[in-house]
Amino acid sequence: MPEKLADLIAEVALANRILAQEGVLDAFGHVSVRHPSDPGRYLLSRARSPAVIEPGDILEFTLDSAPVKPPKVHLYAERVIHGCIYQARSDVMAVCHHHAPAVMPFCIAGKPIVPVFHVGAAMGAEVPFWDQHDEFGDTNLLVVKPEEGRSLARALGGHSAVLMNRHGATVVGGSLKEMVSRAIFMCQNAEYQLRTLALGAPAPLHPGETRLAGSISVMPNVLSRTWEYWCTRLAAAGAMPPQGGARTTVSRRSAPSRASRTLSRKQRKSGRR
Amino acid sequence: MPEKLADLIAEVALANRILAQEGVLDAFGHVSVRHPSDPGRYLLSRARSPAVIEPGDILEFTLDSAPVKPPKVHLYAERVIHGCIYQARSDVMAVCHHHAPAVMPFCIAGKPIVPVFHVGAAMGAEVPFWDQHDEFGDTNLLVVKPEEGRSLARALGGHSAVLMNRHGATVVGGSLKEMVSRAIFMCQNAEYQLRTLALGAPAPLHPGETRLAGSISVMPNVLSRTWEYWCTRLAAAGAMPPQGGARTTVSRRSAPSRASRTLSRKQRKSGRR
Amino acid sequence: MPEKLADLIAEVALANRILAQEGVLDAFGHVSVRHPSDPGRYLLSRARSPAVIEPGDILEFTLDSAPVKPPKVHLYAERVIHGCIYQARSDVMAVCHHHAPAVMPFCIAGKPIVPVFHVGAAMGAEVPFWDQHDEFGDTNLLVVKPEEGRSLARALGGHSAVLMNRHGATVVGGSLKEMVSRAIFMCQNAEYQLRTLALGAPAPLHPGETRLAGSISVMPNVLSRTWEYWCTRLAAAGAMPPQGGARTTVSRRSAPSRASRTLSRKQRKSGRR
Amino acid sequence: MPEKLADLIAEVALANRILAQEGVLDAFGHVSVRHPSDPGRYLLSRARSPAVIEPGDILEFTLDSAPVKPPKVHLYAERVIHGCIYQARSDVMAVCHHHAPAVMPFCIAGKPIVPVFHVGAAMGAEVPFWDQHDEFGDTNLLVVKPEEGRSLARALGGHSAVLMNRHGATVVGGSLKEMVSRAIFMCQNAEYQLRTLALGAPAPLHPGETRLAGSISVMPNVLSRTWEYWCTRLAAAGAMPPQGGARTTVSRRSAPSRASRTLSRKQRKSGRR
Repeated sequence: MPEKLADLIAEVALANRILAQEGVLDAFGHVSVRHPSDPGRYLLSRARSPAVIEPGDILEFTLDSAPVKPPKVHLYAERVIHGCIYQARSDVMAVCHHHAPAVMPFCIAGKPIVPVFHVGAAMGAEVPFWDQHDEFGDTNLLVVKPEEGRSLARALGGHSAVLMNRHGATVVGGSLKEMVSRAIFMCQNAEYQLRTLALGAPAPLHPGETRLAGSISVMPNVLSRTWEYWCTRLAAAGAMPPQGGARTTVSRRSAPSRASRTLSRKQRKSGRR
Repeated sequence: MPEKLADLIAEVALANRILAQEGVLDAFGHVSVRHPSDPGRYLLSRARSPAVIEPGDILEFTLDSAPVKPPKVHLYAERVIHGCIYQARSDVMAVCHHHAPAVMPFCIAGKPIVPVFHVGAAMGAEVPFWDQHDEFGDTNLLVVKPEEGRSLARALGGHSAVLMNRHGATVVGGSLKEMVSRAIFMCQNAEYQLRTLALGAPAPLHPGETRLAGSISVMPNVLSRTWEYWCTRLAAAGAMPPQGGARTTVSRRSAPSRASRTLSRKQRKSGRR
Repeated sequence: MPEKLADLIAEVALANRILAQEGVLDAFGHVSVRHPSDPGRYLLSRARSPAVIEPGDILEFTLDSAPVKPPKVHLYAERVIHGCIYQARSDVMAVCHHHAPAVMPFCIAGKPIVPVFHVGAAMGAEVPFWDQHDEFGDTNLLVVKPEEGRSLARALGGHSAVLMNRHGATVVGGSLKEMVSRAIFMCQNAEYQLRTLALGAPAPLHPGETRLAGSISVMPNVLSRTWEYWCTRLAAAGAMPPQGGARTTVSRRSAPSRASRTLSRKQRKSGRR
Repeated sequence: MPEKLADLIAEVALANRILAQEGVLDAFGHVSVRHPSDPGRYLLSRARSPAVIEPGDILEFTLDSAPVKPPKVHLYAERVIHGCIYQARSDVMAVCHHHAPAVMPFCIAGKPIVPVFHVGAAMGAEVPFWDQHDEFGDTNLLVVKPEEGRSLARALGGHSAVLMNRHGATVVGGSLKEMVSRAIFMCQNAEYQLRTLALGAPAPLHPGETRLAGSISVMPNVLSRTWEYWCTRLAAAGAMPPQGGARTTVSRRSAPSRASRTLSRKQRKSGRR
């Protein structure tokens, strides 16, 4: 196993636990990344709660969500969510499906989540709403069949997230860290939007503000800050994943490397920090 | 004491602590199981807060809620809740009575809890409402007399849970783990239902959805996930029960056994995971 | 120092920390008991946050709130709350003044807290409301002058608690444990009452129910349960007070003694548990 | 490095972590103090989440927010908030910018936070509201340009805090501890104000009450209490900053010194405690 893949697998386990620690995932929900060298495959845990996932739980799937090796363990019933989105969106490198308490009132009421503060703009100006019942009638609301997964992917379209009626949300990103940030800040935005209702219906940011603020969470001096913060909180809770194989040392992530602290020569010259 | 009974007793202590850790039980509330080899008896702790119950606290009662051995300790005043339900419902193997903060607003307002998301369907389409005052006038609201217990059991009827006016709820299950899952997800559902009110009155799932989604929490790939998750959270809080007698090792529960991870030959053949 | 007094002093420190752990007290608030052998004196900590109070912090005051020994430490500015209530109410053995988040909305809105569930009846049917501004005009809202303390004691009257406009609450009891239970359950009741508003204005218990349910929290099989529960939570948070003098071992409280578990001969004969 | 400066640097790291522990700061937000011997400079951390800041992260800036030494690390993009306020307000010795969940509903709804309980008066009678869009149109809402910082400082005027539309708040103080107290109690006030809405629109304190109660949090017997309390909570969470250089021992702060416990001769004579 090449180092890069082992590192990514460790990072998927870490991302699962970060999202559990930050209240996005609970007993349920799952996180995947597209395979770094084979865009026709993705990496996802066996059926296990995100808070306890270890690198050894991560398995490889084709984009039709079949396990590459015959599985000896339970698999998530809803992995078509991941496969169908990777098929439809070549720009997506990471997917999270969750039932975070922060978004559930919107999923249940069928009301939109809109960006109400600068960091919340990470989810984009609009989050489409998908109702499985429209196309499939009565189901157990799990997204299990390929056609259900494809329908969800169509509803997502070119957006960064989609709400699922009476079920939860699915969030995507151009990288694992972008997706993790987006999932967390979208939940924070939803929480603030709901709490603001007691003072009156909140209006969204101006469209131009949303466009400009949407990239705050992936600015270098922000991403290094948030990732260190989330790792520190996870470590403080005693919940860091066990280290994986020989070359995979998750601790290299929890302490920001010298590289992430130090400005590049180019950055220093430009004076842009 | 046969191994099976010792294991079940350890599991009752564990269930008490899981439900306390997950916010269903607090200083009050209690959990029982029907005796595995004598359906005319049930197992329940001495009067103690659920969070601290140990296997050695579990006592045996007849279905008229009399202790099988003369007690040297305080007993729960409300044990008729358990006995009367076991008498009325031969299918019920586990009972929990609680005052969870999530359900209290509904108990106080006299408003129904309805399934508003897929996992919440575990409680069924309808949870009846029982007002002790209707039949018994002014009381201290504790369910202490046999006739009070029988009245509550009648109100429960064939349902999975019953709300008790200004008091709390009682939840039943065909197994201890089913009941624990139901109690937790019913509270989560109540919490989401209440929070959704700020966005408008939430409608319940379609009846067909409730029927289909009602069994999600007892699907094998879900139950293994939730039980491991709750045990992990309990262990992280340093709150696992002490191990009981010689053959009762609760740790065998906290780490999912090889068996629960591995698919049966039948499951692999059917391709159903 | 006689053993009884040392034990009571240790219990005051413990009560401070329990009330902090359970969210009644925060940086502010204070707990006193009447002196066990001299009803003209009371015991109260030096000015310190309740969560960190140790037996060595507890000082003795006369009922006009003067320290019996010249103090070398800061004292609570508001100790007249305690002295004036002990003067006015010979039945009161313990007092707590607090600003719990649960009661603040009612203190700020000037709306009554009423018993809405059985355990909440511990505070009685009515909690009077006192506005310092009515009698004293603009102040910093601290109850510092003897006439302010006497005015508050008059507002309390024969009740178990009093709300203080834009400030907090004061709760009394016939024993330290009764007062601690009442303070915690009154906060829980206020929390439930506020949360219920989203479903409609909650009505109080029937007067007869409040009368009957008011003593639940001091029933022997309840008080032993709650005290053990709160001590266990405090110990789990690593926040038990350090042990005081030679004879004062707080650990004797955190683990329920054999006596509290075992029924008296009288209880066993009467069949009342 | 003189001892006084080292102590202050350690205190800035501590203040960052206290404000994170108390829910004012999260992944974002920052805390500065004016340089104790050079009023034309201020001290602020490199770009890092407040919860993990160490004394070694604190850097020195001129009031136009340029680093005194060429930086080798990422800097906060929004440090002009600090520099522009120190330029405009010679009385201000400490600044905190934050996005606390407690204030966000007010920032989003554009509604004022007003003092609704005695301790909340620490923020003053009025907190002005600043909308970056008014003067600068569509931005990413970060306060990055000097003219943006100056505009914010103008909006702050002579007040103790300013709300920033869809962004957060900035709080100032005449000392670091005053500012920390104010930031925490303003959040607590906002939380209570929001929760009270369910019972009706809360009115503010009388103007005279606000004036008198505004200094409660800097009374000696209060400040010693709150600082010990916050340090104890931080230590209990295992989150105290590592000790800095030779003479900087943060532990001297977490345990109240003999001096802070003991009354001065003057205090004892005056009888004022």
